Amino acid sequence: MAVYTEVPDEELEAFLANYEIGTLLSYKGIAEGVENSNYMLHTDKGVYFLTLYEKRVAAGDLPFFLGLMDHLAENGINCPTPIRNLKGEMLGELAGRPAAIISFLEGVHVRRPQPRHCVEVGGALAQMHLAGEGFGLARPNALNVDGWGPLFDSCRAGIDGYMPGLAPELDRELGILMRDWPRDLPSGIIHADLFPDNVFFIGDRLSGLIDFYFACNDAYAYDLAICLNAWCFEIDGSFNITKARGLLQAYTQVRPLNAEELAALPLLARGSAMRFLLTRLYDWINHPPGAFVRPKNPKEYLIRLRFHRSVTSPAGYGLDA
Amino acid sequence: MAVYTEVPDEELEAFLANYEIGTLLSYKGIAEGVENSNYMLHTDKGVYFLTLYEKRVAAGDLPFFLGLMDHLAENGINCPTPIRNLKGEMLGELAGRPAAIISFLEGVHVRRPQPRHCVEVGGALAQMHLAGEGFGLARPNALNVDGWGPLFDSCRAGIDGYMPGLAPELDRELGILMRDWPRDLPSGIIHADLFPDNVFFIGDRLSGLIDFYFACNDAYAYDLAICLNAWCFEIDGSFNITKARGLLQAYTQVRPLNAEELAALPLLARGSAMRFLLTRLYDWINHPPGAFVRPKNPKEYLIRLRFHRSVTSPAGYGLDA
Repeated sequence: MAVYTEVPDEELEAFLANYEIGTLLSYKGIAEGVENSNYMLHTDKGVYFLTLYEKRVAAGDLPFFLGLMDHLAENGINCPTPIRNLKGEMLGELAGRPAAIISFLEGVHVRRPQPRHCVEVGGALAQMHLAGEGFGLARPNALNVDGWGPLFDSCRAGIDGYMPGLAPELDRELGILMRDWPRDLPSGIIHADLFPDNVFFIGDRLSGLIDFYFACNDAYAYDLAICLNAWCFEIDGSFNITKARGLLQAYTQVRPLNAEELAALPLLARGSAMRFLLTRLYDWINHPPGAFVRPKNPKEYLIRLRFHRSVTSPAGYGLDA
Repeated sequence: MAVYTEVPDEELEAFLANYEIGTLLSYKGIAEGVENSNYMLHTDKGVYFLTLYEKRVAAGDLPFFLGLMDHLAENGINCPTPIRNLKGEMLGELAGRPAAIISFLEGVHVRRPQPRHCVEVGGALAQMHLAGEGFGLARPNALNVDGWGPLFDSCRAGIDGYMPGLAPELDRELGILMRDWPRDLPSGIIHADLFPDNVFFIGDRLSGLIDFYFACNDAYAYDLAICLNAWCFEIDGSFNITKARGLLQAYTQVRPLNAEELAALPLLARGSAMRFLLTRLYDWINHPPGAFVRPKNPKEYLIRLRFHRSVTSPAGYGLDA
């Protein structure tokens, strides 16, 4: 939630001269996005985002991310779209960083999702999965099941200090996930981070999806399992099966799940809870003392992981057997 | 440069329902302004700022600040204007804080002012001084010459650690300022903080003035002296007399200075340099170690103060005798 890079006037002017987006009227640094510096531009032609990619985003991945947004928008998904410069390129350089001008998407993310929002998200996720087909680039999921072991190992020294007894529980869980993880499910482009802050609404209607900087190739049903974790738990840790049923039913109306995907859902949900538990654990253990950004407590994902362990069939998520 | 207050959806909706500004399409936290939390709102009627006033702004001063913006806008100054709610009020409450909806002003502040910008600023400052006449409220300048002594005293313990020898120099200077300060100059509403980041341009034309949260009643020529410090020194500390002449001439074309004001300019400029030197010194000495916002170095104002001490007449600022 910060602007990291201050852009000198002359450099901004020179950069914008490469685009046909009109005369600059104003620009404001936006206090969101921890990975990048974002500015909102007003020109006499409209509203745009200027994004400067900071070090946490690998420059080599940018053609994938920007190309994906472009591809999805062309295929009917409402999402921010990179604007091409006069040379036809989506990526430039500004203040020593890779930079892009991206269309501005109206909408507000919901802070407290209701079941009606989950229905909208389920449908939009399935549409995104279908729209991603035919995209020419691929990006492996660096945070997939094979990455969790090494990530856990890098947390090991601090884990007892965070919560005694957690290490053996996660060791057991990782063993099961590695052993049983389904590797032949229908796959393609997934969002991989479709949390409420990445879904825009205007009123009750979903107006678009944002933040594709974790997008990668993986099982579609795993993306759906991420949404179960992201959208269907209450603040007190309880699972809201009405939200889950709405999310899953709306998804399957657009893209039906096959038998293997359905059967795998509880394990995929455990894996997805593990993935966010581990990255939060890593940030919790490794954040510098006194850092401005307080890391999120990993515990809520431990609670979710334990819940999914208790689910034995898709009926546990509100789907008919 | 931060959003301090996170606003819950329902509270924002209820707050906006008091205004006739249309349907909310999006809102973004803005990474500027250290005193307040600022959000940029898009509605189907236009663009607005939502400002939540944090503790550094005294709630009792808000009717003065908001009323002043309203008054200045009515009198032809391009500045952000508070929008009245359905009850006709400019000030409401949101997330436990005083809050206002304010019109959005297009423009970009210049990072490296040129002489042509100083000319624009001089004229706009004089117009603001004239437009402020007739405003019904008053606010004393808490940071005027009588406030500098106590402010200096509160820095005294840390000043040797900052720069040995500085304390006696400032003591002498404060004595002279207290003794010779002109107290009967033409006075009225002054901006008191018209630095380059508070002046907007579109292209080379000044498009508006912002941030009236230091505005108060004081000598007009003191406001002009603040601008000499804020606009006419180069990064290397040198004084650009071309900029000063442009600023002063443009000012006097709109609002002529009388003989007392002209004669007082060097002392007013010393005082204004002292005022910013002291607040920066205070922040420098008192900022918490490891704080996110690094305070600005006071030294550049010491250099300016010493320069003004060498000026014996308005000719030193490029004005004809």
